[in-house]
Amino acid sequence: MTGSELVRGDRTDLNGPFVARATFALGLEPARITIVGDEPGELRRALREGLEADLCVVTGGLGPTHDDRTVELLGEVTGRPPTVDPALEAEIGALSRAFAERLGRPYSDFEPGVRKQASLPRGSHSLGLAGTAPGIVLEHRGCVVVVLPGPPRELQRLWPRAVESPLVRTLLARAEPPDLRILRFFGVSESAVATALAAAGGDGEGVEVTICARDFEIHVDLVVEPGAGERATELAGRLGASLEPHLFAHDERPIEELVLELCRAGGLTLATAESCTGGMVASRLTGVAGSSDVFEGAIVAYADAVKRDELGVDEELLRVHGAVSAEVARAMSGGARRALGADVAVAVTGIAGPDGGTPEKPVGLVHLHASGPDGERAVDFNLRGDRETIRRRATVTALHLVRRLLTQNGHTPV
Amino acid sequence: MTGSELVRGDRTDLNGPFVARATFALGLEPARITIVGDEPGELRRALREGLEADLCVVTGGLGPTHDDRTVELLGEVTGRPPTVDPALEAEIGALSRAFAERLGRPYSDFEPGVRKQASLPRGSHSLGLAGTAPGIVLEHRGCVVVVLPGPPRELQRLWPRAVESPLVRTLLARAEPPDLRILRFFGVSESAVATALAAAGGDGEGVEVTICARDFEIHVDLVVEPGAGERATELAGRLGASLEPHLFAHDERPIEELVLELCRAGGLTLATAESCTGGMVASRLTGVAGSSDVFEGAIVAYADAVKRDELGVDEELLRVHGAVSAEVARAMSGGARRALGADVAVAVTGIAGPDGGTPEKPVGLVHLHASGPDGERAVDFNLRGDRETIRRRATVTALHLVRRLLTQNGHTPV
Repeated sequence: MTGSELVRGDRTDLNGPFVARATFALGLEPARITIVGDEPGELRRALREGLEADLCVVTGGLGPTHDDRTVELLGEVTGRPPTVDPALEAEIGALSRAFAERLGRPYSDFEPGVRKQASLPRGSHSLGLAGTAPGIVLEHRGCVVVVLPGPPRELQRLWPRAVESPLVRTLLARAEPPDLRILRFFGVSESAVATALAAAGGDGEGVEVTICARDFEIHVDLVVEPGAGERATELAGRLGASLEPHLFAHDERPIEELVLELCRAGGLTLATAESCTGGMVASRLTGVAGSSDVFEGAIVAYADAVKRDELGVDEELLRVHGAVSAEVARAMSGGARRALGADVAVAVTGIAGPDGGTPEKPVGLVHLHASGPDGERAVDFNLRGDRETIRRRATVTALHLVRRLLTQNGHTPV
Repeated sequence: MTGSELVRGDRTDLNGPFVARATFALGLEPARITIVGDEPGELRRALREGLEADLCVVTGGLGPTHDDRTVELLGEVTGRPPTVDPALEAEIGALSRAFAERLGRPYSDFEPGVRKQASLPRGSHSLGLAGTAPGIVLEHRGCVVVVLPGPPRELQRLWPRAVESPLVRTLLARAEPPDLRILRFFGVSESAVATALAAAGGDGEGVEVTICARDFEIHVDLVVEPGAGERATELAGRLGASLEPHLFAHDERPIEELVLELCRAGGLTLATAESCTGGMVASRLTGVAGSSDVFEGAIVAYADAVKRDELGVDEELLRVHGAVSAEVARAMSGGARRALGADVAVAVTGIAGPDGGTPEKPVGLVHLHASGPDGERAVDFNLRGDRETIRRRATVTALHLVRRLLTQNGHTPV
């Protein structure tokens, strides 16, 4: 992964995790992700280190300007000086000509960049273009090197072509995709899951277990070696059973997707009423393609006047219990169902801080309430944390509260 | 940065960018960020490479269990075998005793872990605890090594102590914090900024310029070497002037913060009416601490019935122009001002896809409208991209539309 903006921390690297996940799923064990800037010495060292692996994926530094040096330095460390590929030059040239015309600039301004981007280390193959940079694959002393452009979308477009290239396919033929068992929990601590895992038999004997707290859920993955399938299934079964009320999925789908599916299965529409989360629950739900058949809308009632006028929360209730209370959360939930014409609604009200806390109602106190045609369910929590952490926890809790409401009132067999 | 979940791409590393930003701001040039897993050979290699720098920050792998090997391997590669620090052992022991009691487990279960976490490479200094893992600082052959716990919050809590430690202070005395000039643009392409930069004199002569497209804005940073301050100021001035309508900031504050400040300065309250962004604009605004004095709330009108009933959008308008139209965006904006009692409102309606597009109204078409007491302003765009990209672009555009409305109608002198 190369780029000064990455190594200075100005931008978070998305390509490393993408390639790591993709290669792990194909049966390779990622050894390291290295991020370097445009400084040639550092990039050269990183390339040399990468060439010691079976597969080295290099991203970025393929642009037309002099500070993009990936191909030049890769040619240098592999002893394969780059030469212009005429077919590639014609293809990139056509794109750049059109671009130059649109800008009203002479093509000669672009020509050096085109020749640079059309140059490949000797013996390498082009994977075709995304943007004006080609993907490249080559083999050097037992290491398959894949070079991809830095913009995440361009990289992701070329990635399937890299996987299908003969050199990578030959490498993958030696690999074994991991056999995985997945369990997802909510409402239980990481250490409680670790204890339950130990009680269920623990890992080892061909089953490697990772327990990972992520976005307030506990994600458990069992990586299963050949021959250990039965043990893994038993272990996953025992672990899931011992924490049954908290187990919500055996796959990677995010909670918002599960909630929308539960609603769909029950023929129910959904809405939210949000104060401290400020629309984050609605954002998560509407991030799922096709959510519009279930999700009606939301009222973000940040001001008390909006809670009163749009959600019909009683002035007296606000005065007596305060905006952050179980009573107001309940009224907001009912109000959202009425105002937005939804079957199910979840409401969130809390104090995200850093200001606004009192001894009775400290920063981090959040009340949530979900209601539907067959019942309702409430929960609250009090989390020490910063504003963003409290809001994210409230968002995830709201989604799980709807899941619990719908899985416990008989609408679906989950 | 260590951890199997990081190197497999299951989790995005936050510590690398944090440390890189922090050290860059202190005047050090980050050379590389390396992410490795728990495999000892790889971690050993990464540590050896890191020791060649002036500063090597190692994070993670400090837990009580055997697969956390940072201290052990650091001791090995520096030839400083870890030994138990009695004061640290007492401190961690007290925490673990309390924890064991809460779990109802014998302290002896924890004792080996405590001894492990209280062990420091010979000659190193403890930075104190965050969680049960201490931060550590030591010097080895001209390299200052800082070891910090992996959980981002614990790392960030100990970071200031690392910076204040004598070894790091001595190192920083030789560094010069970078002199920066910052320009932020919206509504102009990266290549147009590059062209304008060249026309303004270009970089070089002590001024290094990075142009970076980020969240649909163009971020330009001038890193200024000693003696080049005047040239940098002139260059920044000329660049800003030539793209003046698009220049919105000279600092790092995010656009939502600028919008809230503009409203505050004008004594105006703010609301949103969102269809395809589903609450994302409201989420961004309410992410800013203290936003409640300006932001009233939002109506996420995903269903047409909500546009009609909550925002008062005319049924006829929806029928004739369709929900995704300039006319409906305008009506939504006016409706939000009325319903939520806000002075200013911005509305977003569009087709985020992947389904729902037509030849006349393709996926990626978004209409936005902002209105306030002194005027209104509309914009639309048509972006090829995935659902998330279209929604993020619409969110950023909505915020900038409010900024333009408020900076062009005389409410503030910006």
